Amino acid sequence: MLESFEKTEIISKSQYTEELNKLRTQLIDAQYEFKKYKRPMIVILTGLDGAGKGELVNFMADIMDTRLIETSTFWQETDEERERPYYFRFWNAMPVGGKLGIYFNGWYEKTIRRALDNNDDPVAFAKGLEEAADFEKMLALDGTVIVKVWAHITKKEQKKRHEKLIKKEKHSEEITKRALWYFSKYEKITECAEAAYKATHNEFAPWEVIDCTDRRTREIRFLRIILDGMNRALQETLPKSSTENLSKLTFPNVLDSLKQDKETDQKVYRKELDELVEEIKPLTWEAYQKGISTMIVFEGWDAAGKGGCIRRLLRAFDMRLSKVTSIAAPSSEELSRHYLWRFWRHVPRAGHIAIFDRSWYGRVLVERLENITPPSDWFRGYSEINSFEKHLSDRGVLLLKFFLHITDEEQLARFKERQEIPWKQHKITDEDWRNREKNDQYKDAYNEMFFKTSTKYAPWSIIPANDKKGARIEVLKNVQVNLKRILGK
Amino acid sequence: MLESFEKTEIISKSQYTEELNKLRTQLIDAQYEFKKYKRPMIVILTGLDGAGKGELVNFMADIMDTRLIETSTFWQETDEERERPYYFRFWNAMPVGGKLGIYFNGWYEKTIRRALDNNDDPVAFAKGLEEAADFEKMLALDGTVIVKVWAHITKKEQKKRHEKLIKKEKHSEEITKRALWYFSKYEKITECAEAAYKATHNEFAPWEVIDCTDRRTREIRFLRIILDGMNRALQETLPKSSTENLSKLTFPNVLDSLKQDKETDQKVYRKELDELVEEIKPLTWEAYQKGISTMIVFEGWDAAGKGGCIRRLLRAFDMRLSKVTSIAAPSSEELSRHYLWRFWRHVPRAGHIAIFDRSWYGRVLVERLENITPPSDWFRGYSEINSFEKHLSDRGVLLLKFFLHITDEEQLARFKERQEIPWKQHKITDEDWRNREKNDQYKDAYNEMFFKTSTKYAPWSIIPANDKKGARIEVLKNVQVNLKRILGK
Repeated sequence: MLESFEKTEIISKSQYTEELNKLRTQLIDAQYEFKKYKRPMIVILTGLDGAGKGELVNFMADIMDTRLIETSTFWQETDEERERPYYFRFWNAMPVGGKLGIYFNGWYEKTIRRALDNNDDPVAFAKGLEEAADFEKMLALDGTVIVKVWAHITKKEQKKRHEKLIKKEKHSEEITKRALWYFSKYEKITECAEAAYKATHNEFAPWEVIDCTDRRTREIRFLRIILDGMNRALQETLPKSSTENLSKLTFPNVLDSLKQDKETDQKVYRKELDELVEEIKPLTWEAYQKGISTMIVFEGWDAAGKGGCIRRLLRAFDMRLSKVTSIAAPSSEELSRHYLWRFWRHVPRAGHIAIFDRSWYGRVLVERLENITPPSDWFRGYSEINSFEKHLSDRGVLLLKFFLHITDEEQLARFKERQEIPWKQHKITDEDWRNREKNDQYKDAYNEMFFKTSTKYAPWSIIPANDKKGARIEVLKNVQVNLKRILGK
Repeated sequence: MLESFEKTEIISKSQYTEELNKLRTQLIDAQYEFKKYKRPMIVILTGLDGAGKGELVNFMADIMDTRLIETSTFWQETDEERERPYYFRFWNAMPVGGKLGIYFNGWYEKTIRRALDNNDDPVAFAKGLEEAADFEKMLALDGTVIVKVWAHITKKEQKKRHEKLIKKEKHSEEITKRALWYFSKYEKITECAEAAYKATHNEFAPWEVIDCTDRRTREIRFLRIILDGMNRALQETLPKSSTENLSKLTFPNVLDSLKQDKETDQKVYRKELDELVEEIKPLTWEAYQKGISTMIVFEGWDAAGKGGCIRRLLRAFDMRLSKVTSIAAPSSEELSRHYLWRFWRHVPRAGHIAIFDRSWYGRVLVERLENITPPSDWFRGYSEINSFEKHLSDRGVLLLKFFLHITDEEQLARFKERQEIPWKQHKITDEDWRNREKNDQYKDAYNEMFFKTSTKYAPWSIIPANDKKGARIEVLKNVQVNLKRILGK
């Protein structure tokens, strides 16, 4: 299939000069317009060895303003990256809005490389492509421009270039070996590329194949592709997410039917808590030894006691293994990227524990109810969150999600108590009272959230929390049981 | 010496309750005031094993607003950190302004741990302490509040606690082994702590010793120390940097005496350039194999041709090994930390190359001349930069600093050319013309910079650049020669 792109257009020397002069001005102008755009443009540049990808980028750097371009390669995994889900590194490399990111090979590198091994697995290959398509769609619907470029040459041309290279780089055995390896894989690589093309060429992230035989032709083609991408953003012709599926359905009311227990006895509480803490400690060290990470999410009503639960957990978690992240309003660096970006940053290393005091669920809670995010965007949150949590679960992360539920009356009582005690006054603001007025809307949003994001790999635990002590015990018990389970005990 | 801090104050139960209630409100109030402060407060919490450092921090978390507190441990080096100068991790963990950062053991960990080994080296120990003091002074003069807490207990008390711990943590052999090791090192650790105290207890970053025998006493003491620290910032009683040394001296005028060559012949240029590129390529791979990193700084007049030099260098540097960073105005995340923070972020991994299109020298150039930074701050820049570059050089980084010099007339000619060619117009703005009016002041600042920051470990190379081609050749030659030198060829 790829051969159909060979020599489809050859640009003559005079055409080249004329076209290039036009493109120079157009590209610079587009860059300065695009600078104000809310999201980046990502170009995945991949293709056959020897096609001249590096030269293309260097050439582009001669034409465009490099201060607005970031180039990322992903050949060398750091241990920081190896210990996290595969997509961690791509999130990490994400430029801010208005910039152009060149990703060499991008997320196709691993999928294609794995398929080249003798023991390739067609299911893993298909899954890799599916994940890529999902990821691209998610970014595209959020406004990121994505273009994927396959740099193509014929086998004959590759051979010619490799021979020239080997002659030139006589110092480097490594290069000779690499060249021969790539040459021997020409057909297989082309086959993988065709499969990737078929599975992931769509409106969200189209593929462009450039025949790289002729220098002038490939240079002009590449610049045009970049310009087109920016223009699609500027002319607002990118695919949009629809609000069609925004349902007016109601969802099972799990909160109101939750039984609230009466207060746990102080002595019983103390004893149980101490025991649980001592039981959890060695489990966390065992998980550390085995490289199993844990992420614990706390959501719940204002004053439901999230902080108290977290502090009790910290008695069991060594400071060296655990980190608490409180989620407040995003910074400007965070706002200029997909909203999941800042949570990916906090995915813990192998064996470590990350606790979230509020979380990525803000997308379908506060951002929804305070109209911070339009419905077409927060509504996508459910599936984006499920996909994020699937990545974590596939990587072997133990993900626990706690929702602390208190009744309306209990919340009122706690608010009043907070107002009376001097050092608790900072915990209660006008905003809390305003939020309280929206409690019915929040309840609907919570119920929808449970319904849509309770998955087999990441279920919600809804904890009755009118009894503070009982809630803490239940959370710690849950952590203990799940650590045991994942450790196979 | 440390024993003089034992049992100096014992807080009774009733005092404790009264004091704690007062502190709760004071701390919360101070936190909310401090939130607006331009820099963070860093608390280094270190001391004897078993003193209860972790508990102290958990206790503090019960009292204060944890959303404004970040806790960092440094026990486990990542390969990302191991490949960079030691202080990289501390810069990385730096909270934004207004937050409190708890650094467990902080930068004393390595120095003290090394001294505990049998083959300790008194010179390395003293150097470690000196670096710590320098680093603290630098941050303190920039407004960061630094407090260092040594958690002390007697040997008898430590033994008691260890025995209790071993009994409790019967699962963990590791803990038993650790406890015994620490106990056997009690005297040696105390001795190191005393030396650290003597060498680094000063107005910039005072030490506080807490006798941790009594729970109530240590808790109140710790909270008071935190409160005092924030108050020192709020009441502006932190040490200030003086402008006394701001000299009116003149410095050797190296720029005007620089000889500008006539234009290099195009054919000669092509040939030399191609040869240099091919010679540099294998050197960079060899440096990569050996883990030697390179940092290349470009400074110079507007339109001096920095971008052109960088693009020629990139022909020799593989995309996978090198990254170009253009330094523009800092982001808000960057502004709320010491100005060197954003450059530490870009220190490359072992074997990699970082190129800077403008650099940390902006502190003593544009920030100085545009009055972005007051004299008392930019003036410290010279020594801060020298210290930064010393860290790099000590770690084995090859640091090359190029200054591209063009004459006033040549700059005018280039500005005019830029205005005439459509795709070069973006390179010339009103700001460039305004900057040009200050060329005399810039010249003085450049000469002062050369004088003060040309060091043995990081000399400036001043390149005559009226001849663009000649300048590029000279830069590439310099890179080639220095790579050879550092590779011992």
